[in-house]
Amino acid sequence: MNALLHDVAHLAYAELLTPEPERSLWFFTEILGMTRAGEDGDSVYLRTYDDYEHHSLKLTAHRTSGLRATGLRASSPEALERRIAAIKDSGLGIGWRDGDAGRGPTYAFRDPDGHELHLYWESEWYEAPEELRPALKNQPQAFPGHGVGVRRLDHVNFLAAEAAANGAFVRDVLGARVTEQIMLNSGRIAAQWLHFGNKSYDLVFTDDWSGSSGRLHHIAFATNGREDILRAADICLERGVHIETGPHKHAIQQTFFLYVYEPGGNRIELCNPLTRLILAPDWRVVTWTEAERAKGQAWGLKTIESFHTHGTPPVEPSA
Amino acid sequence: MNALLHDVAHLAYAELLTPEPERSLWFFTEILGMTRAGEDGDSVYLRTYDDYEHHSLKLTAHRTSGLRATGLRASSPEALERRIAAIKDSGLGIGWRDGDAGRGPTYAFRDPDGHELHLYWESEWYEAPEELRPALKNQPQAFPGHGVGVRRLDHVNFLAAEAAANGAFVRDVLGARVTEQIMLNSGRIAAQWLHFGNKSYDLVFTDDWSGSSGRLHHIAFATNGREDILRAADICLERGVHIETGPHKHAIQQTFFLYVYEPGGNRIELCNPLTRLILAPDWRVVTWTEAERAKGQAWGLKTIESFHTHGTPPVEPSA
Amino acid sequence: MNALLHDVAHLAYAELLTPEPERSLWFFTEILGMTRAGEDGDSVYLRTYDDYEHHSLKLTAHRTSGLRATGLRASSPEALERRIAAIKDSGLGIGWRDGDAGRGPTYAFRDPDGHELHLYWESEWYEAPEELRPALKNQPQAFPGHGVGVRRLDHVNFLAAEAAANGAFVRDVLGARVTEQIMLNSGRIAAQWLHFGNKSYDLVFTDDWSGSSGRLHHIAFATNGREDILRAADICLERGVHIETGPHKHAIQQTFFLYVYEPGGNRIELCNPLTRLILAPDWRVVTWTEAERAKGQAWGLKTIESFHTHGTPPVEPSA
Amino acid sequence: MNALLHDVAHLAYAELLTPEPERSLWFFTEILGMTRAGEDGDSVYLRTYDDYEHHSLKLTAHRTSGLRATGLRASSPEALERRIAAIKDSGLGIGWRDGDAGRGPTYAFRDPDGHELHLYWESEWYEAPEELRPALKNQPQAFPGHGVGVRRLDHVNFLAAEAAANGAFVRDVLGARVTEQIMLNSGRIAAQWLHFGNKSYDLVFTDDWSGSSGRLHHIAFATNGREDILRAADICLERGVHIETGPHKHAIQQTFFLYVYEPGGNRIELCNPLTRLILAPDWRVVTWTEAERAKGQAWGLKTIESFHTHGTPPVEPSA
Repeated sequence: MNALLHDVAHLAYAELLTPEPERSLWFFTEILGMTRAGEDGDSVYLRTYDDYEHHSLKLTAHRTSGLRATGLRASSPEALERRIAAIKDSGLGIGWRDGDAGRGPTYAFRDPDGHELHLYWESEWYEAPEELRPALKNQPQAFPGHGVGVRRLDHVNFLAAEAAANGAFVRDVLGARVTEQIMLNSGRIAAQWLHFGNKSYDLVFTDDWSGSSGRLHHIAFATNGREDILRAADICLERGVHIETGPHKHAIQQTFFLYVYEPGGNRIELCNPLTRLILAPDWRVVTWTEAERAKGQAWGLKTIESFHTHGTPPVEPSA
Repeated sequence: MNALLHDVAHLAYAELLTPEPERSLWFFTEILGMTRAGEDGDSVYLRTYDDYEHHSLKLTAHRTSGLRATGLRASSPEALERRIAAIKDSGLGIGWRDGDAGRGPTYAFRDPDGHELHLYWESEWYEAPEELRPALKNQPQAFPGHGVGVRRLDHVNFLAAEAAANGAFVRDVLGARVTEQIMLNSGRIAAQWLHFGNKSYDLVFTDDWSGSSGRLHHIAFATNGREDILRAADICLERGVHIETGPHKHAIQQTFFLYVYEPGGNRIELCNPLTRLILAPDWRVVTWTEAERAKGQAWGLKTIESFHTHGTPPVEPSA
Repeated sequence: MNALLHDVAHLAYAELLTPEPERSLWFFTEILGMTRAGEDGDSVYLRTYDDYEHHSLKLTAHRTSGLRATGLRASSPEALERRIAAIKDSGLGIGWRDGDAGRGPTYAFRDPDGHELHLYWESEWYEAPEELRPALKNQPQAFPGHGVGVRRLDHVNFLAAEAAANGAFVRDVLGARVTEQIMLNSGRIAAQWLHFGNKSYDLVFTDDWSGSSGRLHHIAFATNGREDILRAADICLERGVHIETGPHKHAIQQTFFLYVYEPGGNRIELCNPLTRLILAPDWRVVTWTEAERAKGQAWGLKTIESFHTHGTPPVEPSA
Repeated sequence: MNALLHDVAHLAYAELLTPEPERSLWFFTEILGMTRAGEDGDSVYLRTYDDYEHHSLKLTAHRTSGLRATGLRASSPEALERRIAAIKDSGLGIGWRDGDAGRGPTYAFRDPDGHELHLYWESEWYEAPEELRPALKNQPQAFPGHGVGVRRLDHVNFLAAEAAANGAFVRDVLGARVTEQIMLNSGRIAAQWLHFGNKSYDLVFTDDWSGSSGRLHHIAFATNGREDILRAADICLERGVHIETGPHKHAIQQTFFLYVYEPGGNRIELCNPLTRLILAPDWRVVTWTEAERAKGQAWGLKTIESFHTHGTPPVEPSA
């Protein structure tokens, strides 16, 4: 059995770096329909309409693209303490920091590949200003009438020199559970999907063929339905956003997807799992073989080459 | 047999009156996602993204709500001549006028109930400015990333003292064909749906219980799919647009619908016929009885009272 | 704060009673697209295509309609022990029973209103026979090409003499959490929605105006998307299944819904939450007032009278 | 201007040949959800649920796959006479035949590439037997609760040695109109889309790179919405139907599509145009260049190689 610890409640935010801050901001607000929640120096805070917290995206101007940090919310103050103790034992802790806007004290650490992660408990619930007040009180903010209208930051897919070592860290130290994985003929785990609750994945680690570390494959935002993704494809087509591949259905996790590049170069997935959830407390890891992967996506779409090569930041030529 | 003459190509535009011009304009641009195509005095021209002509809606500030005119495009110069001759014979012609923006000479006339109608042939094809240029060249204008994103003006539903007399006029003088109708137990035709091409209806006449004449029941805009109508309901809910009834499926014509009131008080339908078309050259009129109508809409929704009483302009109390 | 205990993993099955066993079976297999998983005496076991366990519905021929039992799966053997201890303390335990097909030892108990509940840990994972083998290995059974194609048993809505007392039992004894509720002007809680994981509700208690106890308001099955519910409405219309109300969107929980009566008289909801989940570990109960409820459903549909009066089994006239 | 004659009302039926009659029949009934309407020798008649005529598909057991004939319905007896006169003038007439089941006298002819075409006026309206009676009287037959549930035969795409010559024949002799086409850098028209009414295409001619004549690229059935095509992809995946490419959106005509091979080898498209129609009486042919085509489909999907090479019947090696 593969127990799910529940000490981490959910993926909470990503800090994304962009060398094109204006155009990236345009993408997240005009194309995805996200809302500005404030700013801090070179960063803008952005939220989806169903974020109960202050923000789920921190967009930061930078020399390169990439992911600076990924935030996770603990399930309780005690759960936070337990996980920090385990992180410290792992030797990968960095230390306490003031939280970003709307969050309390935040513990920073790294996964074995070097990606920075944050864990915190205290969080201010968002109160919408008058012009964003929702019609229904069980929703934090009005549904946006423009752009894709994404509901939530859904998952982060990290590139890593060793996907399996990072999956093991998240499983053993943070209490996640592996739901699906790819195993090469050699026995090597090439990618692993992990979750903290009933969503079938929250964090993913994918082998980085470039041999780099700390890079990002993509972050994903969930839409309400598949039609929102078809509409998103039309919006991206019209507004000149680069569509990498899709819309189609993944075999792994069965997610309906569209991959685009935001103007800063980071790959963004728009995803929809329909109503699929993992409810089984004794879930059995689904392992996909090389042969199964060679079939392509669920309905036969071949996996596009750039999907294996494009990550952010770009790999810099050695001196 | 009930021949379809094809001299009228399609419903082309409506001129809608509003006592709340600013807010009505907000509704059509922000909520429906229509685009301004110009203005003229108290009027603003508006277009859907798939209008190949200059505009399909002329929104005019006025003391009351209501419909000032409905435009139809002829299939050819010869067809225009033939129809004008027939209209003149009917005694309901008004005469030639300069066309509105983008249209050539327009012949004005009335239906028996007094609604003003226009017929014309010459029309300038719309050329989108740079910022509205579509990605696909078989589309007049970029798909809007905001609001409902309606595709076309779909139909006009007129209130009339005698629905049947007006249906007969449109059928006999303009060459339309009745596709469906409601017949009361008394034998009276209470409503009639007519079409010019393969769409199952373009003009509808509904008995006006108020005894007034020349009034409007609603104009309708077609969406791409049913999901657009569900999304529209959320947008209207969030932005305070009054939803009268729906979303649901009509038994008559099977259209998926949502009825709202634009801020000027006119009823607007958002409608989706899926892929339903009338292809049969020998279509047989479908006649619905009072008993069938009493069942409500297709899936059981009861017809709301205001649907029988609300028309524009409001009926003025007699002196 | 309102902690979520996670000792109960998920709603697992319902045992439904029907005086029309043949026609009810037709409804669940032909209309909903469920699959027979076996039978036992007067009962037939039925499964949705995404059930990882043996079945989620036990349909039992009986003198009346109604709900005989509701099964919940514990998160671990230890969680099962903890919950049984708490149940025994509450004085509402019944005792151990052999589990139904595919389940191990099951502890039976009652809620304060008398509804029978089951809790168990051991469960055989379903292995699809050749003809039902899925194309994708992360799915228990092939997606059905007929009927509605429901994904899972989603929730049970119990009628109860005192909704609040039952909600408190499920919260305090089983470790659920209240997500939303209706509070009358008198301060009485008229209905309460509770959940065990990230789904926003699994069990609901609604005041039974008839003064009866142990009755059912409805059981619900989740579809993949909203379009499946629109298609379901057409299927029900064509096959003579009684549609009570919908499709529409609930204000409470925002679920897209359709209510029908299966031929045995039990109300069945087809529901779709889109991708809405409750992720907040410190969720704040949303309380709806009488005035808010009077507005009807999200897009304005008035709540139908039978929704307040129809429950199963029917209330028997007193002697 | 490019006038539309309206003498042909619509595409009416296709006669498809299959070397796998049992399995092809399974495909059209179980997968597409079509209904048997009778049989005649080696042929089975099949209908979609919205066919007002007897059938739209005649499936005939044969040594090879391919298309034996395509039927068109005239708009009136006079229109039939006019078109037959024009066909005879073209030298491509074959002669009168008894119509297939449900149709009256049928005039057979060929296009320049040798595809057999039929034109007729008399047609019996379909009367559904009790078990297929629809709930709504404006629909010929109950909506099927199984399979894809296709609405109509939408179009036929013919392979031809010279696409343009065939397009010209259909335009000049049958009164169709070209809506879109592909023009190679050499000036050659490589494919042409033509329509008879408001649907944006009914017949298509595509250059056959094999140098053969009389072959079929595909026939297409329209679904109600895009979601039906996504659901169809899942059904095909589960039931082992070969998916060639899609779902995706065509740049040309903007149709949402899925291409599969029925078990006899013929390519079948499931297509959805949303609510797109051609209403303009003075439509301007949209011409796509080689460079535009090289971009692939609307959202970037590359055109699959087999799309250029697979036709039916297969090209036989020369002796």
